[in-house]
Amino acid sequence: LQDFCVADNSSHVFVNGFVCKDPKEVTAEDFFLAAKLDMPRDTKMSKVGSIVTLLNVMRIPGLNTLGISLARIDYAPLGENPPHTHPRASEILTVLEGTLYVGFVTSNPDNKLFWKVLNKGDVFVFPQGLIHFQFNPNPYKPAVAIAGLSSQNPGAITIANAVFGSKPPISDDVLAKAFQVEKKTVDWLQAQFWFYAHETTLESYLQIKPSSSYENKARF
Amino acid sequence: LQDFCVADNSSHVFVNGFVCKDPKEVTAEDFFLAAKLDMPRDTKMSKVGSIVTLLNVMRIPGLNTLGISLARIDYAPLGENPPHTHPRASEILTVLEGTLYVGFVTSNPDNKLFWKVLNKGDVFVFPQGLIHFQFNPNPYKPAVAIAGLSSQNPGAITIANAVFGSKPPISDDVLAKAFQVEKKTVDWLQAQFWFYAHETTLESYLQIKPSSSYENKARF
Amino acid sequence: LQDFCVADNSSHVFVNGFVCKDPKEVTAEDFFLAAKLDMPRDTKMSKVGSIVTLLNVMRIPGLNTLGISLARIDYAPLGENPPHTHPRASEILTVLEGTLYVGFVTSNPDNKLFWKVLNKGDVFVFPQGLIHFQFNPNPYKPAVAIAGLSSQNPGAITIANAVFGSKPPISDDVLAKAFQVEKKTVDWLQAQFWFYAHETTLESYLQIKPSSSYENKARF
Amino acid sequence: LQDFCVADNSSHVFVNGFVCKDPKEVTAEDFFLAAKLDMPRDTKMSKVGSIVTLLNVMRIPGLNTLGISLARIDYAPLGENPPHTHPRASEILTVLEGTLYVGFVTSNPDNKLFWKVLNKGDVFVFPQGLIHFQFNPNPYKPAVAIAGLSSQNPGAITIANAVFGSKPPISDDVLAKAFQVEKKTVDWLQAQFWFYAHETTLESYLQIKPSSSYENKARF
Amino acid sequence: LQDFCVADNSSHVFVNGFVCKDPKEVTAEDFFLAAKLDMPRDTKMSKVGSIVTLLNVMRIPGLNTLGISLARIDYAPLGENPPHTHPRASEILTVLEGTLYVGFVTSNPDNKLFWKVLNKGDVFVFPQGLIHFQFNPNPYKPAVAIAGLSSQNPGAITIANAVFGSKPPISDDVLAKAFQVEKKTVDWLQAQFWFYAHETTLESYLQIKPSSSYENKARF
Amino acid sequence: LQDFCVADNSSHVFVNGFVCKDPKEVTAEDFFLAAKLDMPRDTKMSKVGSIVTLLNVMRIPGLNTLGISLARIDYAPLGENPPHTHPRASEILTVLEGTLYVGFVTSNPDNKLFWKVLNKGDVFVFPQGLIHFQFNPNPYKPAVAIAGLSSQNPGAITIANAVFGSKPPISDDVLAKAFQVEKKTVDWLQAQFWFYAHETTLESYLQIKPSSSYENKARF
Repeated sequence: LQDFCVADNSSHVFVNGFVCKDPKEVTAEDFFLAAKLDMPRDTKMSKVGSIVTLLNVMRIPGLNTLGISLARIDYAPLGENPPHTHPRASEILTVLEGTLYVGFVTSNPDNKLFWKVLNKGDVFVFPQGLIHFQFNPNPYKPAVAIAGLSSQNPGAITIANAVFGSKPPISDDVLAKAFQVEKKTVDWLQAQFWFYAHETTLESYLQIKPSSSYENKARF
Repeated sequence: LQDFCVADNSSHVFVNGFVCKDPKEVTAEDFFLAAKLDMPRDTKMSKVGSIVTLLNVMRIPGLNTLGISLARIDYAPLGENPPHTHPRASEILTVLEGTLYVGFVTSNPDNKLFWKVLNKGDVFVFPQGLIHFQFNPNPYKPAVAIAGLSSQNPGAITIANAVFGSKPPISDDVLAKAFQVEKKTVDWLQAQFWFYAHETTLESYLQIKPSSSYENKARF
Repeated sequence: LQDFCVADNSSHVFVNGFVCKDPKEVTAEDFFLAAKLDMPRDTKMSKVGSIVTLLNVMRIPGLNTLGISLARIDYAPLGENPPHTHPRASEILTVLEGTLYVGFVTSNPDNKLFWKVLNKGDVFVFPQGLIHFQFNPNPYKPAVAIAGLSSQNPGAITIANAVFGSKPPISDDVLAKAFQVEKKTVDWLQAQFWFYAHETTLESYLQIKPSSSYENKARF
Repeated sequence: LQDFCVADNSSHVFVNGFVCKDPKEVTAEDFFLAAKLDMPRDTKMSKVGSIVTLLNVMRIPGLNTLGISLARIDYAPLGENPPHTHPRASEILTVLEGTLYVGFVTSNPDNKLFWKVLNKGDVFVFPQGLIHFQFNPNPYKPAVAIAGLSSQNPGAITIANAVFGSKPPISDDVLAKAFQVEKKTVDWLQAQFWFYAHETTLESYLQIKPSSSYENKARF
Repeated sequence: LQDFCVADNSSHVFVNGFVCKDPKEVTAEDFFLAAKLDMPRDTKMSKVGSIVTLLNVMRIPGLNTLGISLARIDYAPLGENPPHTHPRASEILTVLEGTLYVGFVTSNPDNKLFWKVLNKGDVFVFPQGLIHFQFNPNPYKPAVAIAGLSSQNPGAITIANAVFGSKPPISDDVLAKAFQVEKKTVDWLQAQFWFYAHETTLESYLQIKPSSSYENKARF
Repeated sequence: LQDFCVADNSSHVFVNGFVCKDPKEVTAEDFFLAAKLDMPRDTKMSKVGSIVTLLNVMRIPGLNTLGISLARIDYAPLGENPPHTHPRASEILTVLEGTLYVGFVTSNPDNKLFWKVLNKGDVFVFPQGLIHFQFNPNPYKPAVAIAGLSSQNPGAITIANAVFGSKPPISDDVLAKAFQVEKKTVDWLQAQFWFYAHETTLESYLQIKPSSSYENKARF
């Protein structure tokens, strides 16, 4: 609704998106970042072997209201950007270095996987809101990709972390039934992601009296 | 862009949404469904103990372009609507009968769980694109809810099915690393959802030569 | 543009929609309301025999920016939700109890009425911006409906009140010609809705000199 | 999503808006109309004393997808553009000739009337979806206005016609209660607008047995 | 998202569009302007022989969020509204007085000119974002047009001024190559628009060492 | 409004965007392109010394409705991507190789140039609809950039080509006045871009009789 609306990160007013800086104080620096996107990232810090360098509106305030962001993704050998969704963006990705096995899964009821193996210079598209991933199948060489996303703040939901690592955790009754496994399997999965001591538990809150068999298993 | 655009399900032209019927042929029936939303659904058919009766544009053609749909959800005792996302809708839900433990998880990096136990007449909101669930913690009584969704075709992605039950399956290399478990655990999880014989496998496609340790485990 | 933007009702900054609370202070309570939507409302308070319990962003701050709201509507025997429009929402309604005669009217030039009689469990759709109504034709039994609306703040314009009960009133010259009736009929209709003493009148403002016949009739 | 999408009025495919002509066949004529907007219209044809010459996408196919239209409105002495809404557009109006008493009414619960008397060269704004009107209070001189509307197909709902002149008519039970008048008054109002012989009546459809007093009055 | 959101020009909070006034303080004056759109403007002040009187949200605060504005354009004999784009609006124009040669150019690769000569009462449409112009070919008589635009803040980029008159100027290396002319021609063109003394030059900033032949010509 | 809407390039139905393929016939190939984005393009073919490889919906049908595209841009030494606008997209660009002098100009009345010199790995943002450019100031080395754009069909309007090279050409009366130069300069500029023989000329169309001095110069 104007030429630009550069995010004012110092503001205490919260809106959908970000409040703008006074246009008279905007400079070229607001649209710029010395992001060193040409430099490899250290994927050793990552359990899953990938580092996403996302340039969104929190990093470049000039992106506010513009509906675009850019990411560099580094993959260790056998590293991956694990299954995740962007609730507010579609994505287009090109491989700068290496090879990637990529795919996305359609919604219910089909849950069809569309996948490709991408080589250097290839391009692939991930539609908004769908679960997708990239995996570097090469055990020796790293891979690098650049991706454009159709939002200045696409958001990302890494499935495993959100489901098994939420804070506080989702009740294991819920997850055991959802994944058709025993609760101890869920507990073990949650332990991989759960570094969080929560005081308020669901049990102390719930009024209804569970059956004895349920009672024994109940943790929430 | 006109008073209404009733979906023409007989058309062979596909667009974003649906092509409209000739407005001259539209009748009140196009906006109506004898959906028997007052009648309990049989939750025994469901592995997870819930049946979602979603009235979207595929069921009521008059909903096309209107940005709204309605659902009745029946929950068996201890039944659940398992963790899922709507890629194209927010949701507001009220409990008609019983009790529900409900929640949603925010995106990275916080993955914070917002949860409540809802009693009859209570209302809760699930923001667009976030993973959410409802669980009937009562081992004796069913529960019923009505929900409004902000799209005529919200879509639903049941996390467990999309991740472990896609057709063809996602490589277990990807899922083992994503969930920080061994591949045999992934294989076991996939077997719960996988009723699909796929011919084209990733292995036959991949050019790169994996390491021997990798080779042994490779299934994709 | 973020996971959620919970309305901050204490803010003195007005925007299109509502300013958001600091995300760090958001809790599950912001997405929840103990609305007792299961309880009958007392329709005796209503001249037209209906009570609309609308859960919009003013009632549930978490609805801000999410494009959805939910309503319970109670109808006395022979009660009605009179002809009205939602300037910012489509609506989908299901009957929980009783019977409803419902309809909407298309725009000019056709002004075609689409109507149905709905029984318990039936569903009907009202497209955005069109005049619509629900009437309980049963002289003995109340009716109840639940409706989803495609905006967190749909707005409602009850036609009779807006046209004949505005504050200050619309000149009866305008309404007499619009409804093709005498001005005394308009005056009588306005008296049903008009509980408002207005000081500034149009007459004292108008520069032009009306004709004598007009002068006698002029009230604005 | 392209430079333009000129409406193809010969197409048998209906979409939200209009299907486009093959871009290679588009000419400057598609964006042009010799609308003679400088010429007075004959307001004698109009019961309410006004003629709206609306240039929307049905008149200028090049307007398709562009979100704008233009209207010339001619008002007889004491003529009016009666209370109406545009379900899909806001409006900005300037007076070319004469004087206009104009106003709009806000939604429930305030139903506040914002009004002005406009002279030649003055400008006024009507927000989307709100009931508004223009009236020429001068008994001797016509008036003329030009208005821009924020849609290529704004739609118009003339309140009196839609409420009292729909085809088939809305039940007079509904309208009598809505306007707080007797049913004979409603019948009389409907007779002003009702030039339509309808065969299917609501009565023959309704299942419930009305009370005798109701039965006597029932017409729908 | 509400009936209106009148721009609060006194606010120090900047958002995409404008912050709203407290709705309780809004009056009819916020939707009104005594713009004297019936009065000729003095085109002698303009080098190109045209004056645009644009009524946007900065002039009428009630236009905020409504997606519409209105303009009167006066053309001297042989005057023009030079080639420009509206980055945020389509336009529909009608000729009140005189004759106009008008046109717009499509995007790459066709760059096709759609043009017409408009007489009094004719209407033409300019699609969003495309370069367009109006020229009064009559050497004796002025012309006048009224235009509606599909944004409350359409913006305008006059091509010649933005390209050759920016502050600071675009390097003449860039413009010489873009327009396939010598740099001295660019310098001369820039001198027509350039009334700006800039201190920070690009040369002092650039790290790379240009070639000697380049060095001599370099000015940026 | 569904998971995806892959463009059906074989359809004869034109809509805003593209008609979709039957979802049952969609494959991973629809979201993929072996675009060889890692390979240098031959900039010798370009008069301005740059080649834009844009991957939009015409190249990758799966991009339809997704609001994103990706481009590789190769710059010869002293080559440039000349001043242009994207009528339907914002852009974010990173430098893969070399150095770029980049900038954009704000709309009227300021026409302020925001510019930076970007080195390898730096990132810059160009807001939607504004005139912008990139220039490789290095006389010896090429440069390469990757850019994301916020539309599947951003469009591009190269200013010089659209203004001086349109087909048919814009009248030199218009351009001479716009650029404040003599008509012979305009004619010379147009000759750089004009490889088009046009038959219908404006002169033969125009009714008004120009003054003799005007007549002599008239070419349109």
